[in-house]
Amino acid sequence: MPKEKKAPRKPIGASPGTVAYVGRERSESVTISRMRYNPNGFEDLQVLKPAECLPEANPQGVTWYTVDGVHDVEVLRILGENFKLHPLVVEDIANTSQRPKLEQFDDYIFIALKMITYNSAHKGVDAEHSSIILGNGWVLSFLEDAGDVFEPVRARIRSGKGRIRKLGPDYLAYALVDAVVDGYFQVLEQVGEDVERVEEEVVSDAKPSTLRAVHHLKRELIFLRRSVWPMREIANSLIRDESPLVSHETRVFLRDLYDHTIHTIDTIETQRDIVSGMLDVYLSSVSNKMNQVMKLLTVMSSIFIPLTFVAGIYGMNFEYMPELHWVWGYPVVLAAMLTLAVSLTIFFRRKHWI
Amino acid sequence: MPKEKKAPRKPIGASPGTVAYVGRERSESVTISRMRYNPNGFEDLQVLKPAECLPEANPQGVTWYTVDGVHDVEVLRILGENFKLHPLVVEDIANTSQRPKLEQFDDYIFIALKMITYNSAHKGVDAEHSSIILGNGWVLSFLEDAGDVFEPVRARIRSGKGRIRKLGPDYLAYALVDAVVDGYFQVLEQVGEDVERVEEEVVSDAKPSTLRAVHHLKRELIFLRRSVWPMREIANSLIRDESPLVSHETRVFLRDLYDHTIHTIDTIETQRDIVSGMLDVYLSSVSNKMNQVMKLLTVMSSIFIPLTFVAGIYGMNFEYMPELHWVWGYPVVLAAMLTLAVSLTIFFRRKHWI
Amino acid sequence: MPKEKKAPRKPIGASPGTVAYVGRERSESVTISRMRYNPNGFEDLQVLKPAECLPEANPQGVTWYTVDGVHDVEVLRILGENFKLHPLVVEDIANTSQRPKLEQFDDYIFIALKMITYNSAHKGVDAEHSSIILGNGWVLSFLEDAGDVFEPVRARIRSGKGRIRKLGPDYLAYALVDAVVDGYFQVLEQVGEDVERVEEEVVSDAKPSTLRAVHHLKRELIFLRRSVWPMREIANSLIRDESPLVSHETRVFLRDLYDHTIHTIDTIETQRDIVSGMLDVYLSSVSNKMNQVMKLLTVMSSIFIPLTFVAGIYGMNFEYMPELHWVWGYPVVLAAMLTLAVSLTIFFRRKHWI
Amino acid sequence: MPKEKKAPRKPIGASPGTVAYVGRERSESVTISRMRYNPNGFEDLQVLKPAECLPEANPQGVTWYTVDGVHDVEVLRILGENFKLHPLVVEDIANTSQRPKLEQFDDYIFIALKMITYNSAHKGVDAEHSSIILGNGWVLSFLEDAGDVFEPVRARIRSGKGRIRKLGPDYLAYALVDAVVDGYFQVLEQVGEDVERVEEEVVSDAKPSTLRAVHHLKRELIFLRRSVWPMREIANSLIRDESPLVSHETRVFLRDLYDHTIHTIDTIETQRDIVSGMLDVYLSSVSNKMNQVMKLLTVMSSIFIPLTFVAGIYGMNFEYMPELHWVWGYPVVLAAMLTLAVSLTIFFRRKHWI
Amino acid sequence: MPKEKKAPRKPIGASPGTVAYVGRERSESVTISRMRYNPNGFEDLQVLKPAECLPEANPQGVTWYTVDGVHDVEVLRILGENFKLHPLVVEDIANTSQRPKLEQFDDYIFIALKMITYNSAHKGVDAEHSSIILGNGWVLSFLEDAGDVFEPVRARIRSGKGRIRKLGPDYLAYALVDAVVDGYFQVLEQVGEDVERVEEEVVSDAKPSTLRAVHHLKRELIFLRRSVWPMREIANSLIRDESPLVSHETRVFLRDLYDHTIHTIDTIETQRDIVSGMLDVYLSSVSNKMNQVMKLLTVMSSIFIPLTFVAGIYGMNFEYMPELHWVWGYPVVLAAMLTLAVSLTIFFRRKHWI
Repeated sequence: MPKEKKAPRKPIGASPGTVAYVGRERSESVTISRMRYNPNGFEDLQVLKPAECLPEANPQGVTWYTVDGVHDVEVLRILGENFKLHPLVVEDIANTSQRPKLEQFDDYIFIALKMITYNSAHKGVDAEHSSIILGNGWVLSFLEDAGDVFEPVRARIRSGKGRIRKLGPDYLAYALVDAVVDGYFQVLEQVGEDVERVEEEVVSDAKPSTLRAVHHLKRELIFLRRSVWPMREIANSLIRDESPLVSHETRVFLRDLYDHTIHTIDTIETQRDIVSGMLDVYLSSVSNKMNQVMKLLTVMSSIFIPLTFVAGIYGMNFEYMPELHWVWGYPVVLAAMLTLAVSLTIFFRRKHWI
Repeated sequence: MPKEKKAPRKPIGASPGTVAYVGRERSESVTISRMRYNPNGFEDLQVLKPAECLPEANPQGVTWYTVDGVHDVEVLRILGENFKLHPLVVEDIANTSQRPKLEQFDDYIFIALKMITYNSAHKGVDAEHSSIILGNGWVLSFLEDAGDVFEPVRARIRSGKGRIRKLGPDYLAYALVDAVVDGYFQVLEQVGEDVERVEEEVVSDAKPSTLRAVHHLKRELIFLRRSVWPMREIANSLIRDESPLVSHETRVFLRDLYDHTIHTIDTIETQRDIVSGMLDVYLSSVSNKMNQVMKLLTVMSSIFIPLTFVAGIYGMNFEYMPELHWVWGYPVVLAAMLTLAVSLTIFFRRKHWI
Repeated sequence: MPKEKKAPRKPIGASPGTVAYVGRERSESVTISRMRYNPNGFEDLQVLKPAECLPEANPQGVTWYTVDGVHDVEVLRILGENFKLHPLVVEDIANTSQRPKLEQFDDYIFIALKMITYNSAHKGVDAEHSSIILGNGWVLSFLEDAGDVFEPVRARIRSGKGRIRKLGPDYLAYALVDAVVDGYFQVLEQVGEDVERVEEEVVSDAKPSTLRAVHHLKRELIFLRRSVWPMREIANSLIRDESPLVSHETRVFLRDLYDHTIHTIDTIETQRDIVSGMLDVYLSSVSNKMNQVMKLLTVMSSIFIPLTFVAGIYGMNFEYMPELHWVWGYPVVLAAMLTLAVSLTIFFRRKHWI
Repeated sequence: MPKEKKAPRKPIGASPGTVAYVGRERSESVTISRMRYNPNGFEDLQVLKPAECLPEANPQGVTWYTVDGVHDVEVLRILGENFKLHPLVVEDIANTSQRPKLEQFDDYIFIALKMITYNSAHKGVDAEHSSIILGNGWVLSFLEDAGDVFEPVRARIRSGKGRIRKLGPDYLAYALVDAVVDGYFQVLEQVGEDVERVEEEVVSDAKPSTLRAVHHLKRELIFLRRSVWPMREIANSLIRDESPLVSHETRVFLRDLYDHTIHTIDTIETQRDIVSGMLDVYLSSVSNKMNQVMKLLTVMSSIFIPLTFVAGIYGMNFEYMPELHWVWGYPVVLAAMLTLAVSLTIFFRRKHWI
Repeated sequence: MPKEKKAPRKPIGASPGTVAYVGRERSESVTISRMRYNPNGFEDLQVLKPAECLPEANPQGVTWYTVDGVHDVEVLRILGENFKLHPLVVEDIANTSQRPKLEQFDDYIFIALKMITYNSAHKGVDAEHSSIILGNGWVLSFLEDAGDVFEPVRARIRSGKGRIRKLGPDYLAYALVDAVVDGYFQVLEQVGEDVERVEEEVVSDAKPSTLRAVHHLKRELIFLRRSVWPMREIANSLIRDESPLVSHETRVFLRDLYDHTIHTIDTIETQRDIVSGMLDVYLSSVSNKMNQVMKLLTVMSSIFIPLTFVAGIYGMNFEYMPELHWVWGYPVVLAAMLTLAVSLTIFFRRKHWI
């Protein structure tokens, strides 16, 4: 898990709606690109200045603005003004620790999401804050980084196949959220492999490092759960709320989205169940090992301690110890010792200790 | 538990509704067979080509199409077109990792299920994806494999006994779902036997392999739960939703189906409770065993260590040790040692350690 | 806990509503007896043939049929036909693994229950499947065995005291369910005594057999919970549903029934809480004991190992060991050993180890 | 915790509504006293016979009957008749194991409560069954014992300060319930002190008796929870239900009562959380201690066992052991032993074992 | 966690609505200051006497009274009278152990809150009781201490920037609650750092003091949760309830407040999940350590005990022991011992014990 980002915090005492970037420092400049399409054709990506982005009065088709980077407060401010976004929405776009949510306004719907990727370097998941705003004829999408998660959607628009060009901005917004949820499946697949690998280790060869791995998995899953869980409510309120921005035709797809979200949450919960069971197994197998160590110690001690005692007896220096002067004394004692050792060995074997 | 199937995933970026088979590779060809019946008679199984399957305009009686295999995307596409299924439905049919669900459309009801069987080879459960679509006068059923789970239903149709021939396609759809749920009881019976066997082992003779068995059971039950739990909602929405496709007469049977589902879930939860208790018992009994080992070690050491010490004393080579020259020295020391050993033994027996 | 009965299962593929006895084999014959009463008088028990049992057209007073044994499918079939019961209801009567439930039909209410008794032989609970059907002017009650649980109700009818003769069949049905729930209290009292006894043992003298007892109690409580929990819903829907078969006057008593059910569930949950806490205490007290054993071992070893070493030193055979030839050598070494032993003893006593 | 009282049980088979005292045996006689007041004045306590207690036709002001003792069934029967109470209510008053509940009847509201006191003798809580019935112009209150929990309410009536004299019987009933809930806070305070004391012990000095104390606290809290939890529903239904017996003015106070109940439940849950965490800490600290014991044992053994072995070597009686005849043999061996001992000590200190 | 404050308790038997300060003793005097503003200007802080605080008949703009200190009952009484507050509200203001809640009255809304600060001295959180009352044209805020948590709000009023001057008292009340919730984020950040630090310790270097730290964190989080959880309901009822005191424009901000509250609760739950997992890891790592200690002991004992035994054999004083007189006896025995030691070492290394 990445170090938990700082909690969302405008400067203490700042007015609510004060836009402030919350997240790790970045130096790249923010780029805005626009794509336009309707059933008949499309206009490909164009890089624009913030001030050039304006909703059209009578939109013909769909206009999609992609903003890569949310760390330039000024850009967000201009966009906020042009599209008449509520200051709190702009604040939430800039706050990378904002939890996923959906807020319905009169003229637009605001969706905050976590885009999740698997980082194979530290075998953990990374989350990126992402926002999607659906308006009348336009969609705004924001990413922390310039990323290519939405590229396949653009490809579908360019190809003109499927129904994306035929449907409105609500379908585009759906397609973007769906692309993010699709990413969850990929991440879960890889986390699932990690879980299986660690599980294998726990059952067959529990080491202290396994414990750390289990703990790490547990944290990753807590983190994942926290990012994905609110998606359920988002999908649900998209279906349920009777917003005029969402057409009847898109609603069927939203049910599919909801279904995928449930599937994701389900998988996370299952993994959590499995991982939390692993700790018990780990503890049990550590106990088992200690048990084995103890048994060896006990067997060794129990066999040799009496023998050593016998040897000690005949190492005493009493003047009058008749056995010592007996010719057969030594062989008889050796034989007795052997008998004792063998009996104890048999006894322990019967108890399945060795 | 079978290795978790890959998470449902259309190729990244593919348009929603893109039909793609998700599941293990298969080479068998897909077969479609049709059965028709009405209260007066029936037409037995006929193998058809996909294009020959079409809903009738004015259905007289019930037509049931069985599709064995969902890995031929082309077949599914043709059926989808003929029966006017939504592309997302066709996608879900082909996706063997789809979770169970029910979706109501204007002209048909789509039900996705998991058919579960017990695999005695690896003492685990296998799940097969299965779909049932109920339309006006027709039912479509899909299985991953050519299987005989629906054979008894066909037998009932052929015999003409019972009410199946007298009632409509809604009763047929119910009968198919019921056949699947019936399978759960069989699986649970066998899992129940596994649980009892392992429980016996945990209580009477806990070995490291027992731990693995407990863990295995736990996973199987997590898997079962995940497959069966959504059935509750499916049965419930069949009863509650006022679809014109479901007659009043069939609703009584759906309540029975609901009841069976609850029974199944109940049993799974009970088993989970029992299995999760077993780990505690296992841990306790490992602790108990270690305790016994420790006691033996302690008893042996505590008796012989002082004795050996005494022997050591008289093994010292001091010139002036009067006891050594005393005629009764040796017997007296032996007797003292014996007394000490006996006292300690009595002491430990009093403490119930031996 | 009795071996879990086979899961409810009509022969695989059998038509729903196929009546089949599910339960342990029985050879006794099934008897049906009838009792009739109204505010003015009563007709005592009469043994009847199944075909003689018929609902009256214009019932004057209440007719109560008791069926002892549900393993004769033919008897159930005849009764089902005479009283116009839905085939699924008859199936549920014969299925002794049916979970408790209430189903409302147009002309009657069907209630399935578990009658629970405490079996002091194996210190566990036994459950018997029981069904009660409330119709217009009649009540049917079914028990697996000829039992006397309903005898006190008959006594009240005969005596004519109380309000049972004055009220209708709904009150009779209530009285029967109430008799069953009354039985729960008795069972819980005895289970409660078991819990207290085992608790005493866990806290004061934990043995391996205690562990088994705790595990046994846990299972009994899981079993009890599963049998009693659905009663809550049954009582609740009797109160809530506006069936014309249940009079306003009886509803007050149903609230009392509901209250008793809640009390029962409450007690079970409390017992479960206590029992699940016991395992922790057991583990802790096993750990405590092991700790004591370890301390003794450590004390013995730590005192005698150094002493033995000293003795070993002076048992060496070097030619030039001046101490050996010193007259005071032996006493001085003995004194040194004593000092060492005493110091260590004091040290351990300070640490509260002995 | 007091021994769980016998489960509520009328004699098996007795008619519902049969009044029978359930509780520990008592020989004191039951006393009934009456107090009357209105805004202008009051009539102080008067001891009455049961038959003298009757609701007035046109009540002027409030009449409050206090009944001390519920073990005289005859008294309850007479009161029940005079105030037209439902037989089930009278049964509940006499049943000291009745769980807290509220039942609304046409002419009165019945409230069953647990009055809880802290028993410092066995550091546990005791519960006393108490009932309050609110009618039109009158309030009946029942206690198991003659107690003084309602004395402050009487004092307020006598003093005429506050609003109690100005408001109706609903406010009096509220004041009585509030007095009972007030008692919970006192008990929780003392239990809280116990929790803190035991927690201190667990963290700093865990002994076997601590385990027993933790277990005892756990049971007390389970018991408390069970007594207090239903209060929430009682307070809630007093606020929500639109009974004509409860005036608008009193409702504000009921919200306060609800708030206090939530506070109490909250505190209990918090204590339970803390106590259940203590067991883990206890186990961990027992493990820690065992670890320390093990370390000492290991250190002692690991240092002296090799030394003893060396001494053993030179205690052998071989004829040809050149070291034995070397003048420096003894000092060199001693020095070697010392070196070995010191090295091992340093090694263990590095590992932080000593 | 600070010692739990005494449970809220008016003197036993006191009339509800009796105002009594519950909290730690304080000697500072209580100060009341007033600030007034409207869109055009503002009047800065003025210290007033209680009697001077009165709601205006026709409020022009907003009047905000800040009361620092709730331990002077007389002051509260006067304010309560002037602003026509219900006695129970005044009681709740003075009761510092009051749990957070919102109560709607006809003319005002009462909000009780916990202001939380991180105390770096004992690495724990402190809570301060705080109340906010929103009336028609006025806001009353109460703090236990003179604090500066509301200073930034005053700064915003003075600067005239943002929307605070333009909106009514409802926005001011929101701004105050928001300032308190903002404080939670700061506290959680610091607790989050503590969690990470302790987690690090648990995984890499578990000591007994770590256990205490984990337990301390657990308690802090229980305490935090209890203080923050009710905020959810408060924010929710502010949004949902249709009070005329809250304008439509402010509602958007309340949704933001709700969102922040959820975020806070979410973070606390996540931390609790992590901390509760730590105890398991701690236990496992203590077990691991003990395992290592055991292994060393076993290895040392298992190697040296047999060797010592061999030495013991040749330390026996039998007259007829041929090996003793053999010239090569000593070297051969030494070599044998070495071989044995090496073999055992290899054996243990193979088992990965050393």
